[in-house]
Amino acid sequence: MNDIMVIGIAGGTGSGKTTITNQIKERLGSEVTVVTHDNYYRAHHEMTYEERTLLNYDHPDAYETELLVEHLAALKRGEAVEVPVYDFSIYDRTDKTTTVEPSRVIIVEGIVIFAHPALRDLLDVKVYVDCDADVRILRRLMRDVKERGRSLDSVVNQYLSTVKPMHEAFVEPSKRYADVIIPTGGQNLVALDMLVDRIRTHLRQ
Amino acid sequence: MNDIMVIGIAGGTGSGKTTITNQIKERLGSEVTVVTHDNYYRAHHEMTYEERTLLNYDHPDAYETELLVEHLAALKRGEAVEVPVYDFSIYDRTDKTTTVEPSRVIIVEGIVIFAHPALRDLLDVKVYVDCDADVRILRRLMRDVKERGRSLDSVVNQYLSTVKPMHEAFVEPSKRYADVIIPTGGQNLVALDMLVDRIRTHLRQ
Repeated sequence: MNDIMVIGIAGGTGSGKTTITNQIKERLGSEVTVVTHDNYYRAHHEMTYEERTLLNYDHPDAYETELLVEHLAALKRGEAVEVPVYDFSIYDRTDKTTTVEPSRVIIVEGIVIFAHPALRDLLDVKVYVDCDADVRILRRLMRDVKERGRSLDSVVNQYLSTVKPMHEAFVEPSKRYADVIIPTGGQNLVALDMLVDRIRTHLRQ
Repeated sequence: MNDIMVIGIAGGTGSGKTTITNQIKERLGSEVTVVTHDNYYRAHHEMTYEERTLLNYDHPDAYETELLVEHLAALKRGEAVEVPVYDFSIYDRTDKTTTVEPSRVIIVEGIVIFAHPALRDLLDVKVYVDCDADVRILRRLMRDVKERGRSLDSVVNQYLSTVKPMHEAFVEPSKRYADVIIPTGGQNLVALDMLVDRIRTHLRQ
């Protein structure tokens, strides 16, 4: 159990969480397994597309975190897990899964992962990626419009009605649990070096 | 030049800067040299004790930062420097100096070290130790009353008249320059491990 290091990377939408996770993965390769909280968005096959678009995806309850906690415990025991695959274009979980093999370092990434006590307890290193709100919304806007095919109006409406209030209610307060806060996420090579050196030291032990 | 890593550790009064600096020093010993900005408080031999007690010690101009910048540049060139010794009990610089030898890792510690552009440019890693203001003032109060022989009234007056406004004007905004923010300073072993692993990796290179 102690042999496996679980690193949580949290932070608001557009903070640079994924960029920093990818950079760690790029430098350390197969020694690091990444598990994304977004893949644990609850399935809502019982609803219509229209109904699903109206759900609040930024509240901690939108996630099946209990399943992620189970999976992390299994990975820590050295067992592979079947991670659900979520499809953002249909706002629903698919029937596919991805097999995730255990490794000596597991990164868990998500906006509200520090807000769930049982999940938090499984994280050996808690990193919060911090970034000004204006920069974050611009990044989210570009991603959702260009990569996820959403309209400008829908992104702005969703941001103001749920993303921002949920950020203030759950994401920002969860920063308090961080061991380390990394400002200006993705371009912060000094912080990246620190994280990578910490992981490499663990891998050598 | 590139062979020497300079780490700046900033943060408000009572944030735990010195604790974390001491813990790094304890783990890494003589491979790390510590330089404290407080030792560069300007000399005011021309003033009476009473006049000196009335100065604002929390404004960046209270420090002879240009001398610290010179010294750091010299250390980076591999030269030893004579660091002034400041005496808090008389609110003045003494005539003594401490010889500081260059080493592969130099830690610069101080509340406003990120507020000075020329100093900031010399820092390879900028760490800001963050802590709630109520916890910080309680730590400062205990230290100043018990270790520095100051009265409760003088600590409270100084805090409200200069320490707090200067913190808000200079220290807190300088957090923006940090590469890494460490919450709840001294007891944060996860962050300490990261810093120590980063330094050890540098020492091995």
